[in-house]
Amino acid sequence: MSEFGPLSRIAYVNGSYLPHNAAAVHIEDRGYQFSDGVYEVIAIHRGSLVDEAAHMERLERSLSELEIDWPMSARCLSIVMRQVIGRNRINDGIIYLQISRGVAPRNHAFPAYSESSLILTARSMPPFDAAQASKGVDVITIPEIRWKRRDIKSISLLANCLGKEQAVQAGAYEAWFVDDDGLITEGTSSNAWIVAADGTLMTRHADNAILNGITRKTVLKIADEQGIDFVEKAFSVEDAKAAAEAFITSTTSFVKPVARIDGDKVSGGKPGPLVARLLDYYAEHMNDQAAV
Amino acid sequence: MSEFGPLSRIAYVNGSYLPHNAAAVHIEDRGYQFSDGVYEVIAIHRGSLVDEAAHMERLERSLSELEIDWPMSARCLSIVMRQVIGRNRINDGIIYLQISRGVAPRNHAFPAYSESSLILTARSMPPFDAAQASKGVDVITIPEIRWKRRDIKSISLLANCLGKEQAVQAGAYEAWFVDDDGLITEGTSSNAWIVAADGTLMTRHADNAILNGITRKTVLKIADEQGIDFVEKAFSVEDAKAAAEAFITSTTSFVKPVARIDGDKVSGGKPGPLVARLLDYYAEHMNDQAAV
Repeated sequence: MSEFGPLSRIAYVNGSYLPHNAAAVHIEDRGYQFSDGVYEVIAIHRGSLVDEAAHMERLERSLSELEIDWPMSARCLSIVMRQVIGRNRINDGIIYLQISRGVAPRNHAFPAYSESSLILTARSMPPFDAAQASKGVDVITIPEIRWKRRDIKSISLLANCLGKEQAVQAGAYEAWFVDDDGLITEGTSSNAWIVAADGTLMTRHADNAILNGITRKTVLKIADEQGIDFVEKAFSVEDAKAAAEAFITSTTSFVKPVARIDGDKVSGGKPGPLVARLLDYYAEHMNDQAAV
Repeated sequence: MSEFGPLSRIAYVNGSYLPHNAAAVHIEDRGYQFSDGVYEVIAIHRGSLVDEAAHMERLERSLSELEIDWPMSARCLSIVMRQVIGRNRINDGIIYLQISRGVAPRNHAFPAYSESSLILTARSMPPFDAAQASKGVDVITIPEIRWKRRDIKSISLLANCLGKEQAVQAGAYEAWFVDDDGLITEGTSSNAWIVAADGTLMTRHADNAILNGITRKTVLKIADEQGIDFVEKAFSVEDAKAAAEAFITSTTSFVKPVARIDGDKVSGGKPGPLVARLLDYYAEHMNDQAAV
């Protein structure tokens, strides 16, 4: 048994709860040959799903943009998610769910008929630890080479993988994509933020160029509630390097300070005061939901 | 039993020859969650693989660009391909092969260790029929929204699927992507060609913006051998609509005349003389290989 998980993990695959090792899909599942599917990753904090409704709302949008049918009602999916969490005895961790257009003879165009595939996995992770979460990380910047519909949370993630691998090879935690205008879009699996010299919180506006992160939305809501000035606007690499603070947000990184961008220190290489505040508020936000 | 295939199809999956229905991969295969893989489609003509060496060379390049290991030697793969063709009793048709980075716990960065996954399927298709192949088809033009590494034959094909579906919805056979400069890159699963008013054959130069099709390369070789003037250069939608002839090339479409672009007739809506010649030469090229 590993430190943070039961010996045998259980996955849900198209109607069955299976031992993780036996969890398989057909080779002609369009998710496998065309990346024709979408996904969500939801944090589990003290046994509760964090921002479940927002994730389900985004899932609905992703499916709708690609004209993929729900494999089951949102209500049933909610039950299956809880089954997967329970069967894997997860208290803190993540649940991963993926929906593809289903199995059909290979052909680029949508099949006349297919049943959407649904898989879910969950894994335990160390419980939220403010000291750990607030540690600064390094990011690098790389050219934006992804497709133009990054607002859809699709499994077409090859460019994101290549970018993350570049970060790892450079000894960094994340890579920020920079578009043809020199503006940062987002990280390979997180949104990018800065605090300008005048204290204004900035993150790119949510159009087709980025995924509208659920943690991103929560942090904007917190800023609004707390009277923190913010603007949703693209910023350049130079803006980011000159910023008072920088950070990233994602389901698994929470609100994470950036210590260095391309090796240049931000905020003296130490987490700044605003990001520390936002992380506190975000931890509260998670606790509030766990208490429900 | 269908008109063109045995009752039970056989697929190759990671070392095993399996009934098609039972051909499955693990849900954490990176091909399924990240589109982290590559593929090839090779025509089978009278029992022989068409341009096998060129396909294997391109496969090598795709794998190398993504730093994915060969799942087995090229020599062994060649044997497995023949097994799949034989076991499926294919005389005319296609073989599909896909290699992914393999199974690993979900994480964008490359796993420290994984074994590449390999799957192969084959299917029968009607034998090459010059009359059928020379029928003109309609294409539409759509904005280029794909990633910037289209030179890699990856399974990250969601944008291609969406484009092909747009074509089908418009009653067309193919959609041509048009980049930000108004220039045609290629089709969703084929290369785009025109014959200019002065008789010059044109197809976009092979950089990162397009996949360097094997049929494309063969047609360029034929043009060279036959003393047909050609240039590898991008052309606009206007160029294409004003062209003397237009056509597409791919493994399964061969050399196919375009009758209409966005509803506007090209070459009076009839296949032009040069495309007819090229198709004849291409048919010869396939026959030459079948005779080996």
